[in-house]
Amino acid sequence: MKFVKNDQTAVFAIGGLGEIGKNTYGIQFQDEIILIDAGIKFPEDELLGIDYVIPDYTYLVQNQDKIKGLFITHGHEDHIGGIPYLLREINVPIYAGKLALGLIKNKLEEHGLLRTAKLHSYHEDDVIKFRKTSVTFFRTTHSIPDSYGVVIKTPPGNIVHTGDFKFDFTPVGEPANLAKMSEIGNEGVLCLLSDSTNSEVPGFTMSERVVGENIDEIYSRVNGRLIFATFASNIHRLQQMVESAVKHNRKIAVFGRSMEGAIAIGRELGYITAPDDTFVDAHQINRLPANEVTILCTGSQGEPMAALSRIANGTHRQIQIIPDDTVVFSSSPIPGNTVSVSRMIDMLSRAGAEVIHGPLNNIHTSGHGSQEEQKLMLRLLRPKFFMPIHGEYRMLREHTKLAEACDIDPSHSFIMDNGDVLALSKDEAQVAGKIPAGTIYVDGSGIGDIGNIVLRDRRILSEEGLVIVVVSINMKEFKIASGPDIISRGFVYMRESEDLINEAQKLVSKHINKVMERKTTQWSEIKNEITDTIAPFLFEKTKRRPMVLPIIMEV
Amino acid sequence: MKFVKNDQTAVFAIGGLGEIGKNTYGIQFQDEIILIDAGIKFPEDELLGIDYVIPDYTYLVQNQDKIKGLFITHGHEDHIGGIPYLLREINVPIYAGKLALGLIKNKLEEHGLLRTAKLHSYHEDDVIKFRKTSVTFFRTTHSIPDSYGVVIKTPPGNIVHTGDFKFDFTPVGEPANLAKMSEIGNEGVLCLLSDSTNSEVPGFTMSERVVGENIDEIYSRVNGRLIFATFASNIHRLQQMVESAVKHNRKIAVFGRSMEGAIAIGRELGYITAPDDTFVDAHQINRLPANEVTILCTGSQGEPMAALSRIANGTHRQIQIIPDDTVVFSSSPIPGNTVSVSRMIDMLSRAGAEVIHGPLNNIHTSGHGSQEEQKLMLRLLRPKFFMPIHGEYRMLREHTKLAEACDIDPSHSFIMDNGDVLALSKDEAQVAGKIPAGTIYVDGSGIGDIGNIVLRDRRILSEEGLVIVVVSINMKEFKIASGPDIISRGFVYMRESEDLINEAQKLVSKHINKVMERKTTQWSEIKNEITDTIAPFLFEKTKRRPMVLPIIMEV
Repeated sequence: MKFVKNDQTAVFAIGGLGEIGKNTYGIQFQDEIILIDAGIKFPEDELLGIDYVIPDYTYLVQNQDKIKGLFITHGHEDHIGGIPYLLREINVPIYAGKLALGLIKNKLEEHGLLRTAKLHSYHEDDVIKFRKTSVTFFRTTHSIPDSYGVVIKTPPGNIVHTGDFKFDFTPVGEPANLAKMSEIGNEGVLCLLSDSTNSEVPGFTMSERVVGENIDEIYSRVNGRLIFATFASNIHRLQQMVESAVKHNRKIAVFGRSMEGAIAIGRELGYITAPDDTFVDAHQINRLPANEVTILCTGSQGEPMAALSRIANGTHRQIQIIPDDTVVFSSSPIPGNTVSVSRMIDMLSRAGAEVIHGPLNNIHTSGHGSQEEQKLMLRLLRPKFFMPIHGEYRMLREHTKLAEACDIDPSHSFIMDNGDVLALSKDEAQVAGKIPAGTIYVDGSGIGDIGNIVLRDRRILSEEGLVIVVVSINMKEFKIASGPDIISRGFVYMRESEDLINEAQKLVSKHINKVMERKTTQWSEIKNEITDTIAPFLFEKTKRRPMVLPIIMEV
Repeated sequence: MKFVKNDQTAVFAIGGLGEIGKNTYGIQFQDEIILIDAGIKFPEDELLGIDYVIPDYTYLVQNQDKIKGLFITHGHEDHIGGIPYLLREINVPIYAGKLALGLIKNKLEEHGLLRTAKLHSYHEDDVIKFRKTSVTFFRTTHSIPDSYGVVIKTPPGNIVHTGDFKFDFTPVGEPANLAKMSEIGNEGVLCLLSDSTNSEVPGFTMSERVVGENIDEIYSRVNGRLIFATFASNIHRLQQMVESAVKHNRKIAVFGRSMEGAIAIGRELGYITAPDDTFVDAHQINRLPANEVTILCTGSQGEPMAALSRIANGTHRQIQIIPDDTVVFSSSPIPGNTVSVSRMIDMLSRAGAEVIHGPLNNIHTSGHGSQEEQKLMLRLLRPKFFMPIHGEYRMLREHTKLAEACDIDPSHSFIMDNGDVLALSKDEAQVAGKIPAGTIYVDGSGIGDIGNIVLRDRRILSEEGLVIVVVSINMKEFKIASGPDIISRGFVYMRESEDLINEAQKLVSKHINKVMERKTTQWSEIKNEITDTIAPFLFEKTKRRPMVLPIIMEV
């Protein structure tokens, strides 16, 4: 980094700024780079068929010899999902807490990368030292166990990354380590990178414990089967549900691959505890009386292939909705999923289930702290410079206002874009330059082979459909050998639009013959003539603009 | 209707049950049909390019001689948007309140149907009599002025349709006519059809007056320009904004076709009142000091072509965001629009505007009554039978629970689907049969020419793209004359995937030659061979399943 001086620490993100997702941050001092998290992002327009989005790793690949380690704050997909893609390019050592490490191992195994990966588990009190920098941790509370903030000690000063956090004073697991945060503050923080997700939300985020009480209240009052859907990674939520099930004498059957995995890893690590006979399989659950049954499943986001969707639409092999079933959505829909979640709730209602969902029931809480918690973090750590992370632009901006209210000079707050590099010396900070930080699409097994042109095509195809005009041309005699044939997909139903297609065919035929008379050997000329003839014709007749694809075969 | 007896009144919907949208209800006694509303629905999956959805009008067309009139409850698109499509099939007389009639006229003019339409305006106290039935009205409160409930008097008893309503005791326009509703109740209601939109929401919906106070509070505190986005049809909201603008000495410039139309019709009918010099044009507004400016615009739902979107992304010809601008979203996003609204808020923030949005600001309220209001309606009208309308299935179901709480026997509540016909005699009611009530897609100028096959194709194309294999075959010699050529769209970027395409080409060529050796004259055999060869090959290489379209030209 030419634009960063030798006595400066550089801080940057190649994902996570101006967005929720693909968190990937770097802290660099001279020839030592500490990476924090490697996440993926789920695309908002599901229909275009992209599976996920990852950052452009170019800078990391070019500087792989400098990377000391990738430190994972917690095990959510937007923090660990990119690891297999990064590891395929550079095999950096990975440091993670207990649960995150378990999830990463599963992921690497699926990708066939587990054997070669260099994995290390860390504890809160560990200090991992490199030549010029070192890394320590502090425990936070979040919607997944084993969530940590990270302190990177560099010669100009300490950089603190909060990870995702809330301040849950009555959590299900361990509370946040306020004492350690306060010590870190006392020691001095040069720059704080803090989670901005809920910076638009006033007050304090509800405690996980309250959610547990409300779940238990549902268990007390429901007599039929209970079908419980939530995020698989919310292990504390699962444990609260399990406790209520045990208390109210219900067995639990688990459906959905990620939920089965979460229960397994949660039990293995001791986060989920229950008598051995609590968990039963599908055969057993169907033999029990309704008031002894809990069905725990994936699909709280309306995902069409998840267990709950299949239960709702009657295609699940083992579970069908029966009268007196109660379905609990212990979750809130991510913005892009509101329609599909609403559709699924309706389907479950139609099938006869009672559905408990929505914020009024207080059966879900955010894993991210609201404004007062963000202020508490700022007051504990008292940083000299501030960089809001993990949020869309407006959330980052709101977070800087909270920082200002907590006495951070606005000129010391930096709202950055992915790729911007903040150069920090002891007393000064400025955005000094930029590194590559584009967007790579992952679709099927392809990484980066879907570009903007392909996406643009998919969009046009999905909105207007396609018309193909294919014609064989005898290039020696300059005449049509066969066709033109017109084929369409996603445009109009062909069998009911014969007249339209016949008319278009005649028109195109006439125009091709006209071009042929000029004895052209330029295919592009014929192609343009076809498009220029048929596109306005179809628009006039249908007010639609399908993609037109002329295909010429030379015989 | 063979399944309805001669002394029974039939009640049905061909749109509006199990959904929010395309409200179209019918009340039939013998040879007299009264229609209530003719709405459209906006499709949830925007990407598939459908403009709107209308009901299947088959039953109405077949029984057009019986239809006495179409009575419009209010001027929202989900109640009047279908009128042009219905009128193209049957020219029924239309009865509407003052504002709805104005909006319908504009709509019919656009469709070239105004000259022939039979339009009548009604007032609350009108009684419109037919031979066996008659129609009267009662004023309600809703998010558009001139909203009415409708009473259809039939020999077996009175049928009441509430239209869309809330009970706003401090509305901006006239209050609901509680006295008249109470009289209607006293007279006896055989069946009540009541708005279920907010049946999942406890309590009472906030008054429009409170929204006005909060808008005024924003006017008091903001010094820069105010950019105000809301639903154009919410004329009372517009009037409250106009009053605040006048009070705080700001001029108003209006952008967006529907907003210009709303202001014009609102002023013409006296719902929007302001000194003549309040409204100015774009040239004038750009010459005024910032604290004297209000920009009123469309686009509060994130619609990409609306004024606010173009202002946000910098492509609006007259208005750009400048520092100290405040944008107010006096609206809430419809479920399908959450992502695009969020994206737009972010864009406006990035451009430097302060954005006020979200329920915590109380600058928007629903036009639909919550649970207590739905109960109040039930208590005032005390119907013998109850049919919840205007809602998804789960909302209809919640509404029947509220009815039960208000002493309506559950066996007297009917959760129906579009097309179900409820047959009512003086003392009995039952779902007696079904009429056609499908879904017709409107796309461009085409009505109903987009079917499920076309939509399925658009979905596949949008998610996986398309691969075309085109080959010319000499059918006399059973050999390939030209090709096979492989063309793709929305699949992979072709220039970077040459190897993949070349390999596929060779493979297909080999398989076609193999089929040719059998001297087949069946094109379908060749086509199947192509698909069966290339589809698994591409899936193996890319993990994607594009639509494969084999095209064979005979030469």
